[in-house]
Amino acid sequence: MRVGIVGYGNIGKGVEAAVTKAADMELVAVFTRRDPASVKTVTGAKVIAYDDITGMKDDIDVLIICGGSATDLPWMTPELAANFNVIDSFDNHSSIPQHFAKVDEAAKASGKVGIISCGWDPGYFSLARILADSALPEGDSYTFWGRGVSQGHSDAIRRLEGVKYARQYTVHVPEAVDKVRNNEHPVFTARDMHLRECYVVAEEGADKAAIEEAIKTMPAYFEPYDTTVEFISQEELDRDHSGLPHGGSVLRSGRTGFNDEFNNTVEFTLNLDSNPFFTSSILAAAARAAFRMNLEGQCGARTLFDVPPAYLSHHSREELLAHML
Amino acid sequence: MRVGIVGYGNIGKGVEAAVTKAADMELVAVFTRRDPASVKTVTGAKVIAYDDITGMKDDIDVLIICGGSATDLPWMTPELAANFNVIDSFDNHSSIPQHFAKVDEAAKASGKVGIISCGWDPGYFSLARILADSALPEGDSYTFWGRGVSQGHSDAIRRLEGVKYARQYTVHVPEAVDKVRNNEHPVFTARDMHLRECYVVAEEGADKAAIEEAIKTMPAYFEPYDTTVEFISQEELDRDHSGLPHGGSVLRSGRTGFNDEFNNTVEFTLNLDSNPFFTSSILAAAARAAFRMNLEGQCGARTLFDVPPAYLSHHSREELLAHML
Repeated sequence: MRVGIVGYGNIGKGVEAAVTKAADMELVAVFTRRDPASVKTVTGAKVIAYDDITGMKDDIDVLIICGGSATDLPWMTPELAANFNVIDSFDNHSSIPQHFAKVDEAAKASGKVGIISCGWDPGYFSLARILADSALPEGDSYTFWGRGVSQGHSDAIRRLEGVKYARQYTVHVPEAVDKVRNNEHPVFTARDMHLRECYVVAEEGADKAAIEEAIKTMPAYFEPYDTTVEFISQEELDRDHSGLPHGGSVLRSGRTGFNDEFNNTVEFTLNLDSNPFFTSSILAAAARAAFRMNLEGQCGARTLFDVPPAYLSHHSREELLAHML
Repeated sequence: MRVGIVGYGNIGKGVEAAVTKAADMELVAVFTRRDPASVKTVTGAKVIAYDDITGMKDDIDVLIICGGSATDLPWMTPELAANFNVIDSFDNHSSIPQHFAKVDEAAKASGKVGIISCGWDPGYFSLARILADSALPEGDSYTFWGRGVSQGHSDAIRRLEGVKYARQYTVHVPEAVDKVRNNEHPVFTARDMHLRECYVVAEEGADKAAIEEAIKTMPAYFEPYDTTVEFISQEELDRDHSGLPHGGSVLRSGRTGFNDEFNNTVEFTLNLDSNPFFTSSILAAAARAAFRMNLEGQCGARTLFDVPPAYLSHHSREELLAHML
């Protein structure tokens, strides 16, 4: 399987690591909209200008698109699906139906497969939701995130006057998880489920009290949550908060029995030292699936809901039946 | 979707409950090898003799076979796949490849779909294993069961001289789970992972010390584990141990990064008040998938590894994209 990577940020690097380690994959090139000469890959993989990508259509089986959901993927995934099997990690939940429709149109026209919204949420968390919901149609589902770095919230703090740098951790409330596990079927506010922990490097002479107040009262981002703000030095931030850990849990509590007499919980939990590298690893597995689905004649947009799990695996059918079932 | 149930034990009753509640399913009949007049269904569903089942082939879209893996399913699933889409919960792990081959042959000949080994282990736990393994190809997987009733171990105790009744709980060792979560990649013995708790009703005058010794030294079943034996009255057993709870966790601890520098854990946990009713609920969801796969022209044996998760769900594609992805 010959793989191309589009975009070389954290996710692109993660895909480079995952593809390089997969025995059934070969990394053909990284494509960038920057000057290719300015991009140096970790493994020495070739870097090619994005504008030259169509010329490579016969050399690549699947493109893994590692762009942002806000401004890159909405046009890039449909554009590339016109010539390639594609994978993306589109995560703007409310726009997924429109994005799916655009990729579907392009991929049906080209006879290619495009699997969108691969990653862990959307992605593996979505799979946990559908599996739990299918087994327990009567019940309530919950998603908890953290403890992990939210880039969006970190950026929102960084845009405030007097802030040099910031790191925001989303933290789930353990007592809330316990209520779900105890089959209490709670109705939560945002504040009940998650806390927000902020570590801020202030500019010299900045009004720290004003910054803290601005953070805690920021609508949507922080106001609906219990938020803590701690001012630290750039040195402390670099030392203690340079990683991108994340994780979380999908839980469903539901009843079975003729009279709903039995309680059941299904729980899927991730704990990740590196959010982007785990996301990338799922993107690589999804690329394997897209290639296989296209080989058997499928085309159009797909999500992980449409992928037989065996297609994600590097193991043979015999190995799966003998050791994993 | 018109559904038939074959066999009317705990699992058959659970399927009756699940199918009766599913808006897209209709329960046509329960088939039994007993005298149909002797079987009374909870919902009043029709009971028909197993020998008359082939005459119903045009009235049923999927048969859910609720027999035992030891003596029923090995012949019954292939026999019924000759005329019906079928679902079973075959759970004899080491014989799965042979069972798959026999069902595959029959279902290919009839143009039907047979999904075998549906339930939670094999089944949903298998899905957790393949998803975790696909995302974290470098790592170690572990399966913990319990706390829950093991019928096989309970039966093994009941066969001992002087034992009237018994209930055995398989209990996972929390410290072992913690080691996996801490990415210690432990190598466990059976004893490290699980305990066995036995509640025994002895016959009057029985030699309790001899029973306890016979249990604790029973090869394969109890000798490899730390086992506790408590003698209780039939009344206590009926009051405190009449349920069939179960559960467990599949965990994988694996590394990502160019130099395996990032630790990650994936965890899938079930806590079930009723093992058979949850298993049945998955069987009903699998029946939906078999019907859909056969409608699109597929035939042959399948496992949940081959089923696009969307096919298990009663939700429409639009609902799935908008609310569950």
